[in-house]
Amino acid sequence: MRALALTLAYDGTDFAGYQIQVGQRTVQGELQRALEQLHGYPIRTIAAGRTDSGVHATGQIVSIHTDLDAIPTERFAAAMNTRLPADVSVLAVRDVDATFHARYDATARHYRYDILQSPVRVPHLRRYAWRVGEELNVRRLNEEVAALVGTHDFTTFAARREKRDSMVRTIHYARFERRSPIVSFYIGANGFLWRMVRSIVGTVVEAERARMHGGQIRPPAAELLEARDRAVAGTTAPAWGLFLTGVDYDALPREDSANEL
Amino acid sequence: MRALALTLAYDGTDFAGYQIQVGQRTVQGELQRALEQLHGYPIRTIAAGRTDSGVHATGQIVSIHTDLDAIPTERFAAAMNTRLPADVSVLAVRDVDATFHARYDATARHYRYDILQSPVRVPHLRRYAWRVGEELNVRRLNEEVAALVGTHDFTTFAARREKRDSMVRTIHYARFERRSPIVSFYIGANGFLWRMVRSIVGTVVEAERARMHGGQIRPPAAELLEARDRAVAGTTAPAWGLFLTGVDYDALPREDSANEL
Repeated sequence: MRALALTLAYDGTDFAGYQIQVGQRTVQGELQRALEQLHGYPIRTIAAGRTDSGVHATGQIVSIHTDLDAIPTERFAAAMNTRLPADVSVLAVRDVDATFHARYDATARHYRYDILQSPVRVPHLRRYAWRVGEELNVRRLNEEVAALVGTHDFTTFAARREKRDSMVRTIHYARFERRSPIVSFYIGANGFLWRMVRSIVGTVVEAERARMHGGQIRPPAAELLEARDRAVAGTTAPAWGLFLTGVDYDALPREDSANEL
Repeated sequence: MRALALTLAYDGTDFAGYQIQVGQRTVQGELQRALEQLHGYPIRTIAAGRTDSGVHATGQIVSIHTDLDAIPTERFAAAMNTRLPADVSVLAVRDVDATFHARYDATARHYRYDILQSPVRVPHLRRYAWRVGEELNVRRLNEEVAALVGTHDFTTFAARREKRDSMVRTIHYARFERRSPIVSFYIGANGFLWRMVRSIVGTVVEAERARMHGGQIRPPAAELLEARDRAVAGTTAPAWGLFLTGVDYDALPREDSANEL
């Protein structure tokens, strides 16, 4: 019995999210269909993170067990990709310890959120970036999010329906970077609450817009964080700008290639 | 009677090209439908270039005449965009002289061709870049295309069915640039023959691949050019990597914004 870690990329546009759901087209559903085709029987999959509908990935990690000795690890990705639709792709497959668990063993997760700076819509980017017409001040956005780095209770930036024992997470880095015409937000943490990245992006961008248009100024992100109250945060940025770009494990070196996709 | 120049962006994926065709979904068809909705009667459109099926644009220029005084020039783009589908967008509208002709008055056209460097397919980029698994040597590619700059007969790099009085064109610049994970090819000329950009990209990339894999080495691009024979060129790169990024006119300053989209 081999244990494998699959690095997965997908275009989230036409999926009802990662997690399998009856009657819906999901990434996990397509993945398990392809695995069953390959094996002749169902294979259980465990993913590092369950991305929402419309969210993309270039570095999702999925662990499986297989006794399919006919396909060596270095040919597994190709065997899967011939069975997967065009909007899902296995970028890499690595051998892992039998006890490896893509979700529980993850030590950090990395996301990118892309904002398109444009006063009018740009067709070929419409599914992969949130369009913001106002010219964003990257320096000021970075000052805002710097206050979030470290270990904090992130209740303010979680979806209302998020129900976890602990809302405390440790953000390792959070920075905006201009790559014209896109402004990318890069964030890494030991874990994320539901809708946390989109909530952070939506809140700080909304605050910037309010500042520009002379609207009501929201308190700085540091203060919002302290309130521990979803009601004080701003809007949630749309799903289509978000990419899960990587997951870290002690036992598995990070793949550089997926980072820049 | 006002004359206007519209700057158009579109995602070419779901279009049978720019030019209107009976029974096909085309960019011009959508544009004329929106113009007719706005005016109440048909409006003639003249585009700088007729892009092929699947080819994108961020800087197509279309000239029209209108007597619709109710909509000032600065609100024309917005009025059009509410009537256009998500994969076409009017980026800007400018007043021009009544004699302005988007096609005949163009002094230069600019294209970008995006190549994705990846050994496996990457879902969210599948419609907007040609995937090439081999690591391309940008310096060597640039040496190849440098020979094409200047005034030459480009018969070698035209589609076989291209029938023009003159196959002579002047290339102003042609260079590859790495913007990981994409390698972009930028080219500007006074005009292009049919499939010329895709033919140049396909030929030089194929030559690079052959060099790497020890295949048959094609003569350098300069020599192919001199043969004036389509049969000596290589493959034609696929449509989905190509973007029409801008058009120059003596009477109209170039818009910088569209260049970087």
